[in-house]
Amino acid sequence: MCIEKLKSSLRTVPDFPKEGILFWDVTTLFKDAGCLRELEDILYNLYKDKGITKVVGLESRGFVMGPALAIRLGAGFVMARKPGKLPAETISETYDKEYGHDTIEIHKDAIGQDDVVLIHDDLLATGGTVAAAARLVNAFHPAKVCINFIIEIEDLKGRALLPADVEVTSVIKV
Amino acid sequence: MCIEKLKSSLRTVPDFPKEGILFWDVTTLFKDAGCLRELEDILYNLYKDKGITKVVGLESRGFVMGPALAIRLGAGFVMARKPGKLPAETISETYDKEYGHDTIEIHKDAIGQDDVVLIHDDLLATGGTVAAAARLVNAFHPAKVCINFIIEIEDLKGRALLPADVEVTSVIKV
Repeated sequence: MCIEKLKSSLRTVPDFPKEGILFWDVTTLFKDAGCLRELEDILYNLYKDKGITKVVGLESRGFVMGPALAIRLGAGFVMARKPGKLPAETISETYDKEYGHDTIEIHKDAIGQDDVVLIHDDLLATGGTVAAAARLVNAFHPAKVCINFIIEIEDLKGRALLPADVEVTSVIKV
Repeated sequence: MCIEKLKSSLRTVPDFPKEGILFWDVTTLFKDAGCLRELEDILYNLYKDKGITKVVGLESRGFVMGPALAIRLGAGFVMARKPGKLPAETISETYDKEYGHDTIEIHKDAIGQDDVVLIHDDLLATGGTVAAAARLVNAFHPAKVCINFIIEIEDLKGRALLPADVEVTSVIKV
């Protein structure tokens, strides 16, 4: 199987979540057993030699492949969640959105200074959420940070918002 | 490693999400690489001979182990989400909560009549959400349905709400 097969398993939904947006739906990839396993293999091969000790998944589609990848890599899994969802003490980061702002949180005891962290989400679009996640993870002063996406919408140039010294990968470019 | 080790990796948080509730926090298990892998092994061994073809994870902590287990079992993964989060056509189920009601949705093309479905969530408490998920999955008329939790709070007797003919397992009983 190749990346093209994974790409063709995605569904595009026009005008979701609002008019004018073409939504790349990864649920049609996830429900296909062969595609799901292939995606995990590709992610594992990208990161198997990077010494990753923690995978941070962004709520909530980043929770799908993040833990599976963490297990393959022998790493732990950390949830980056919306405000009020994590029960213990957190560190948070607020960021601007098109209208208003949003906040993400990580438990204060979830990442240590020896950790090599892989931040994972399903989609890189304009990059605002993951840029905030990168700032949040950096507040823990980990040894190293990498960033990965399943899908990258190249026209939206989300990489421009991400720190220049961080290695960023994506599996499917659209 | 044994179940006791996994159990001791959980954190309890008093008065979350509201006063009087003792919250069982599974994030401290997830962040521990050894516990995370052990949990996956236990789940895999519970279901490896059941012919599971689809794992349905409940938003959003059910998204963490559901896909990893699906990959190990050679199954696909399906998200059961809160209203308005899935982009394509859905089937939904509404259920009563302590105050008001809630709804969960699954994409209409996510489950077929040949599928053997495992519904997975992190926690069985009073059972309202998973009972609704079981009704929702049954609306697809799959070949068989099983239900699994990481943690079961036995005193809350959530199993009483679940269909009597469905096999229910939990890894950690508290």
